[in-house]
Amino acid sequence: MELSIYYKFILTFALVLIAARIVGELFERYLKQPPVLGELIAGVIIGPYALGAFVNDPVILNFATISAFGVEHFNMMEVISEIAVVVLLFVAGVETDVKAFMRQGVTGALVAVGGVIFPFVLGYVITWLIYPEEGLCGWLFMGAVLTATSIGITVRILMEMGKLQTKEGTTILVGAVVDDIIGIVILSVVVSISGMLKSGETISGGAIAIDAIKIVVIGFAVWFALLMIGVKFHRYISRFILGPFKRSATAPIFTLIIGFIIAWAVTKVSLHPVVGAYVAGLMFSTCAEREEIIERTRPIMMFISPFFFVYCGMQVNVPELLPGIGIAILLLVAAIVGKMIGCYIPAKLQGKLSHNSALVIGIGMVPRGEVGLIVASVGLLSGAIGSMLYGAAVFVSLMSTLVVPAMLKPFLKKMPSQNT
Amino acid sequence: MELSIYYKFILTFALVLIAARIVGELFERYLKQPPVLGELIAGVIIGPYALGAFVNDPVILNFATISAFGVEHFNMMEVISEIAVVVLLFVAGVETDVKAFMRQGVTGALVAVGGVIFPFVLGYVITWLIYPEEGLCGWLFMGAVLTATSIGITVRILMEMGKLQTKEGTTILVGAVVDDIIGIVILSVVVSISGMLKSGETISGGAIAIDAIKIVVIGFAVWFALLMIGVKFHRYISRFILGPFKRSATAPIFTLIIGFIIAWAVTKVSLHPVVGAYVAGLMFSTCAEREEIIERTRPIMMFISPFFFVYCGMQVNVPELLPGIGIAILLLVAAIVGKMIGCYIPAKLQGKLSHNSALVIGIGMVPRGEVGLIVASVGLLSGAIGSMLYGAAVFVSLMSTLVVPAMLKPFLKKMPSQNT
Repeated sequence: MELSIYYKFILTFALVLIAARIVGELFERYLKQPPVLGELIAGVIIGPYALGAFVNDPVILNFATISAFGVEHFNMMEVISEIAVVVLLFVAGVETDVKAFMRQGVTGALVAVGGVIFPFVLGYVITWLIYPEEGLCGWLFMGAVLTATSIGITVRILMEMGKLQTKEGTTILVGAVVDDIIGIVILSVVVSISGMLKSGETISGGAIAIDAIKIVVIGFAVWFALLMIGVKFHRYISRFILGPFKRSATAPIFTLIIGFIIAWAVTKVSLHPVVGAYVAGLMFSTCAEREEIIERTRPIMMFISPFFFVYCGMQVNVPELLPGIGIAILLLVAAIVGKMIGCYIPAKLQGKLSHNSALVIGIGMVPRGEVGLIVASVGLLSGAIGSMLYGAAVFVSLMSTLVVPAMLKPFLKKMPSQNT
Repeated sequence: MELSIYYKFILTFALVLIAARIVGELFERYLKQPPVLGELIAGVIIGPYALGAFVNDPVILNFATISAFGVEHFNMMEVISEIAVVVLLFVAGVETDVKAFMRQGVTGALVAVGGVIFPFVLGYVITWLIYPEEGLCGWLFMGAVLTATSIGITVRILMEMGKLQTKEGTTILVGAVVDDIIGIVILSVVVSISGMLKSGETISGGAIAIDAIKIVVIGFAVWFALLMIGVKFHRYISRFILGPFKRSATAPIFTLIIGFIIAWAVTKVSLHPVVGAYVAGLMFSTCAEREEIIERTRPIMMFISPFFFVYCGMQVNVPELLPGIGIAILLLVAAIVGKMIGCYIPAKLQGKLSHNSALVIGIGMVPRGEVGLIVASVGLLSGAIGSMLYGAAVFVSLMSTLVVPAMLKPFLKKMPSQNT
């Protein structure tokens, strides 16, 4: 029966989510690791290159890519995965404290900038030296992957250790937020350059620079405009956009839908949908309805967002990862050292923090987590990086997150608690 | 860029949900109608046969069906729509009061049976007389569409009028639940017969009857087994299935994922996924965690389920509906009169209710709502009914819901309030 194909998608959807929850829970409880790591590994286990290969069905635990809509490998699951990541970044945006972010701005911003430059240069140079045949797109993407910082994971570790409300904690938080913005703009720039290269346009340094600047300016302008709308006009948002939906208690859901509209809209100025989703979240984070929005959109995020992480893991081609294990380890070292140095220097010089505090900030910014994965999956999907470099990028995102709790603990213990 | 195709799906997803919310809100507030009607009409307005035709893009507000996986018209949006309806029926299941349902069992069950037989026969006979060329599948499906009762809409009207906790209200509720079960089993039977006919198997009355009975028995057995697991073993469910996820507060989400697994599993015994989703919900409705499950899964349902109703509306081919308007009106009259008579008789005779009370129950069972739409969309998707009969079925589901508040008011006013 024709319907049975849709039932297979329901099964795959369910298997992805159940694997995410079970392995995520095991990681959290027994390995004391963020569930997101478990979800990634669940994806690797159930994916088309492992368990999926034994299922012998194009849909169940496989990608069933088809040539459609002028795309060679159109993948059904990618649509659900995009929905999942948009919801995730929207909720992250709503949960961001815009005011604290602005207060701690300068130090945090410099920490973020330092933490972007060092890893980017290292990632670019290492990939270029070892894989010159990957071309500019590949080098740029691997640089971009290394610039990422995962807010979620960093915040989670600080919370668990009771160090979120310290000066170091706040700086890490602001740094991670700014890093996210810079990283996402870098991602857009890299995507745009890689698109330019692929369409066979003449590649002149000047043209790339002008285009890059254009994207940065447009990107920051759009981002800043949306943020300012939230900061300045949140009363009007509450009254005219959320007001009509208050009676039916659907205002929070309406904000999320607007998040989707903005996620799509920013793609029209070359930004990635997650930028739009995040900034839409920030826009609503200043509204009086913030708590209600979080309360009603969090369950949606908790339900659907693991799909993205499992899907990321499912794309890791284990057999193809092995030949690239060398560069993966090299990039991991670069990711850790680059981020630590890049964040330590501004924290020490501009923030006037102690050696120990600056180190805490440096290590706290190391996890690449889901942001690195987003960059890597965009690279893979746009064809800028192959499955080997993608595997290395996933390895770096995964391992850089795994090592942080152990690295951070000794330095956090030397710090006085909740001193802000 | 290859990614842009996915952005178009994000846009369509967002446009569907925003149209649902805006038109739904307008219907609720200004026309005093259930939002679900607004969502349906929003679908008709933005669908491929109206607004979508002007967009000139295969994905944006269009179905972009492709020939894939051995299916001629594989439709991406159908996957999301299936997810949406599974979530909806799961939450409906959790919200059902299993104990009250069993207490008021006999009268409610007879009301449901009467309300199924009369409309089914009328729907079958009318379609057979007017469209003999539609064949057995078409006649059966139109009968099945007319048997449906929408719990949601009936409950909502009773709530708004403060008559939910009356004897009449409870009987309607139980009747609607039993009707749902019978209707869903009928749907499975009809789907199975239509599959048998299509695959060219020899059609003998005896074979159909045996197969029908087999499906009814298996269907009821599976359904009853799952319900009994919930009723008898809910302590074990709480301890062994939900317990491990309590610490991370993801138990409610885990129940929903199990709902998806069961939704898929029942398709293996020819049942429709919504039966599985509903019964999975019922299974958890007896657990101590019920309130928590409702609280955490409702936002997900509120976010995603409008997608199903808009998608249903989008499939209404307005130009093709006009030639079928005659049968649509005829079926609507049959749907109203058939349900009223079928429910009135057992309520009066077995329930010993007054003339006025029996009429209230009869009218209260009239709305077909989303259940009729589910049946109709399964019929359309499986090829059993064409777009004209589908349009008629949507018309009946829609209009039978629209007329009820006005019909019900005078009789409800004659009733004493909250007399149970």
